[in-house]
Amino acid sequence: MPGVYLAGPEVFLPDAVEIGRRKRELCAAYGFEGLYPLDNEIPTAAGERVDKLIYDANKAMMVRADLGICNLTPFRGPGADAGTVFELGLMVGLNKPVFAYTNDAADYAHRVGMFAPAARERLRDDHDLEVENFGNFDNLMLEWAVRESCGHPVVRHAASAADRYRDLAGFEQCLRLAAARFSSAMPQRR
Amino acid sequence: MPGVYLAGPEVFLPDAVEIGRRKRELCAAYGFEGLYPLDNEIPTAAGERVDKLIYDANKAMMVRADLGICNLTPFRGPGADAGTVFELGLMVGLNKPVFAYTNDAADYAHRVGMFAPAARERLRDDHDLEVENFGNFDNLMLEWAVRESCGHPVVRHAASAADRYRDLAGFEQCLRLAAARFSSAMPQRR
Repeated sequence: MPGVYLAGPEVFLPDAVEIGRRKRELCAAYGFEGLYPLDNEIPTAAGERVDKLIYDANKAMMVRADLGICNLTPFRGPGADAGTVFELGLMVGLNKPVFAYTNDAADYAHRVGMFAPAARERLRDDHDLEVENFGNFDNLMLEWAVRESCGHPVVRHAASAADRYRDLAGFEQCLRLAAARFSSAMPQRR
Repeated sequence: MPGVYLAGPEVFLPDAVEIGRRKRELCAAYGFEGLYPLDNEIPTAAGERVDKLIYDANKAMMVRADLGICNLTPFRGPGADAGTVFELGLMVGLNKPVFAYTNDAADYAHRVGMFAPAARERLRDDHDLEVENFGNFDNLMLEWAVRESCGHPVVRHAASAADRYRDLAGFEQCLRLAAARFSSAMPQRR
């Protein structure tokens, strides 16, 4: 059963463990083994920092995974969670297919305009930094890395504000796309 | 001469070309060839989207590079620029040494507290997402990827607000560290 690394900022929710359980169940329904960062056993080695052990465990999980699904929903600003974006890059560098979704359907330039109203007219933010306006969900490197890697655009789903980090409709759409790609390896699926 | 990919949000500044010139000059002084994303010739192929061509050109430059230096200064919120973070991940996945700096010396938890005052006391943001508090400059995956990759922590430099995206002191410190690592390959250096 192909292993799919489940990257996303939902690991920071109070109910992160429960969301991981739901994601793994959905993975199993589509013929995948879900690999969720919080499932890592973090050893309590003397003299080692916990954050380093988490890094090592997550990286090992990504090296072991056959593919990834990244939750690129905006996080503390107009852009995606840095930890998840790093993991997208790492898996693309390791040449693994990565699918991705966002629970905010808007274009990036629109979203920057919500945070920095002056940016709406001239596409420059408060630091005079240009706002990308290619109609992508976020920075062009993210959109095209996903397209090149898995063959599909980033899935955009307009979740309700309350469900922004828990809605799994976009995630399930990624699983459907991944199952179609991996179907030759999984004749038993569904 | 080893080629160093120069990742950072300064490509969005009005004077991005001039900053790239200064970065490349510093690279040369330390024995490196600076590879700056804006130096890519973007062909105007019919039927291809410009953003895809930029992605392809940047990725090819990273594949060609021997190492990377990433500017992880916070960008439109408490965290680093998504494009730069993606490039950090990609180069780590490609097993290239990556050095990094930030022009904001504060810890991540402190900075989130500036954007979301309620987070200061309970380390949860407005969406109830936990705020990492390991004393790192940003998400732990970024700090430890850099440490593992190049052997040094992310360089923190307290730039003035006006020079936040132009100050090159942290960048030059990365070049010093990189030159020490690559010195055996460059006896002619300095």
